[in-house]
Amino acid sequence: MTVRNKLGAQALLWTCGTSSEELREVIIRAAAIGYEILELVFPDPDAIDVNAVRVFLQDAGIGVTGATALAPSSDISSEDSTISARGEEILRKAVRAVAELGGTQLCGMLCSALHKYSSPATETGRANSVAALRRVADYADGFGISLCSEIVNRYETNLVNTTEQGLALLKDIARPNVKLHLDTYHMNIEESSMEGAVLMAGDRLGYVHVGESNRGYLGSGNVDFASFLRTLLLGGYTGPIVFESFSSAVLEPSVSSQLCVWRNVWDNSDDLAAHAYAYLTTAVESAERGLRGYRWAGSQPLGGKRDLPGPGGKQ
Amino acid sequence: MTVRNKLGAQALLWTCGTSSEELREVIIRAAAIGYEILELVFPDPDAIDVNAVRVFLQDAGIGVTGATALAPSSDISSEDSTISARGEEILRKAVRAVAELGGTQLCGMLCSALHKYSSPATETGRANSVAALRRVADYADGFGISLCSEIVNRYETNLVNTTEQGLALLKDIARPNVKLHLDTYHMNIEESSMEGAVLMAGDRLGYVHVGESNRGYLGSGNVDFASFLRTLLLGGYTGPIVFESFSSAVLEPSVSSQLCVWRNVWDNSDDLAAHAYAYLTTAVESAERGLRGYRWAGSQPLGGKRDLPGPGGKQ
Repeated sequence: MTVRNKLGAQALLWTCGTSSEELREVIIRAAAIGYEILELVFPDPDAIDVNAVRVFLQDAGIGVTGATALAPSSDISSEDSTISARGEEILRKAVRAVAELGGTQLCGMLCSALHKYSSPATETGRANSVAALRRVADYADGFGISLCSEIVNRYETNLVNTTEQGLALLKDIARPNVKLHLDTYHMNIEESSMEGAVLMAGDRLGYVHVGESNRGYLGSGNVDFASFLRTLLLGGYTGPIVFESFSSAVLEPSVSSQLCVWRNVWDNSDDLAAHAYAYLTTAVESAERGLRGYRWAGSQPLGGKRDLPGPGGKQ
Repeated sequence: MTVRNKLGAQALLWTCGTSSEELREVIIRAAAIGYEILELVFPDPDAIDVNAVRVFLQDAGIGVTGATALAPSSDISSEDSTISARGEEILRKAVRAVAELGGTQLCGMLCSALHKYSSPATETGRANSVAALRRVADYADGFGISLCSEIVNRYETNLVNTTEQGLALLKDIARPNVKLHLDTYHMNIEESSMEGAVLMAGDRLGYVHVGESNRGYLGSGNVDFASFLRTLLLGGYTGPIVFESFSSAVLEPSVSSQLCVWRNVWDNSDDLAAHAYAYLTTAVESAERGLRGYRWAGSQPLGGKRDLPGPGGKQ
């Protein structure tokens, strides 16, 4: 039985570096483990030599997605139009980088800065975010790119912390190529029901991060991945399932501190990534086996693309 | 069958206020629901008229504990000795307030500020925290007060995020009246095993907060309270079990923003608190029933005080 969702690894499992040599090494390692997607992270899309990296990806036979996280100085939800415009420009560059790399999805913290805010979001700030994402979505549509706006916890944004809020944002943006990016690490903090969130997101779910509650090895914390994955598959989600985990053994100190990684739960990238690949492969296979014969009565599969396998694993 | 752990409610369920009139109202409401302990929070211990409040507590027949949370300007883990000294003075005042109120425990964020740090803890800062807590512990011992140092998540301290780190801190402080304060909200983010954390804390566990993963109604999120409470009781924990939950319907805006409460999951304090009381009472009773006949083979019950009920509920 083959897992049909593409399993991915985020480049930050190995390095924060953006040089072609560093990314070539990451691409080779991720592909060697078996990952079908590498998620490249662009704090600065200009820093990557997309032509060189595209060739490395092709040589390794691995797909690509892009991720970014806006900073306070480039926060599209800012009330300051200069700051918001700077963020919009970064998102456009990131869209272009994903397109040039051969990808179709830009995910991550798109709708505000990844930042501990000191006051609630404002109506004006939210309106700026909606307007900017609408323009970036139209730009991205020209490249066949979807924006997948990540829902993160309260300590990393004040704008959208739950799927319900994310769907409300998407409704206001009103562009079909803007979708939700759910992440189990954040859902464990914010969602009352992880299963409810997945089914509520429905066909607006575009991207999934699997991260453990302690951001370490999958299965070493409090997230019920079996239930989460079963619900994803029950809803017919066909998109990427990408593993994320952080350690200051790999991250630059500034990134570690931004993410509050004060203690390391791993130091061996390859071991961590190989474990996650094996964990996800078996967990998704188990979920598919457990769901044989069940079909979701919802009107639209998640992602809008496929049904569950039929009884006996036939498709 | 009677629940023997005292069930408590934190005053912030009803108000951030510290006037005698406000606290009198809270005391009456908490006692009316059935809570046996009210946890009063002192950002500024001087703000409370302890003599008036002690009488209200006695009149209502409810016990009291104290909690505080140091600010960056009074952070005992600061490398700046002026700031550290300011924090130590606040802790001493809080100890004195608890004693004058008739309590025996000061809990909360004692070892550092409750704050999103922008860099890792330093050796000097940690040493300052250890030295200050040792002196405050000796001061507290004169009043028969225990300090219960809360373990909070990465976004609220850089010093101690897990039970393992907390025990290391306690070892360095080397004072028997300094204990751990565990909180399920934070454990859900940081601990690889909530059950493991409880049993590892052992007889150094002094205080427990039950908070849901979304900080709302108990049972409405991802915390497995049945397993957590069974483990607490299996280990023989006899200390307080105190409910904490936050809403900007009640909190002052500055406190709401400090805690990143950007959306409200409740607005009726009495309904929330009564629900939590009923939830905890039935959950603890169920845990005790489920554990009849089991005894923990550990050398010391948690808190060092009692065994589990014997078979058939005999004690």
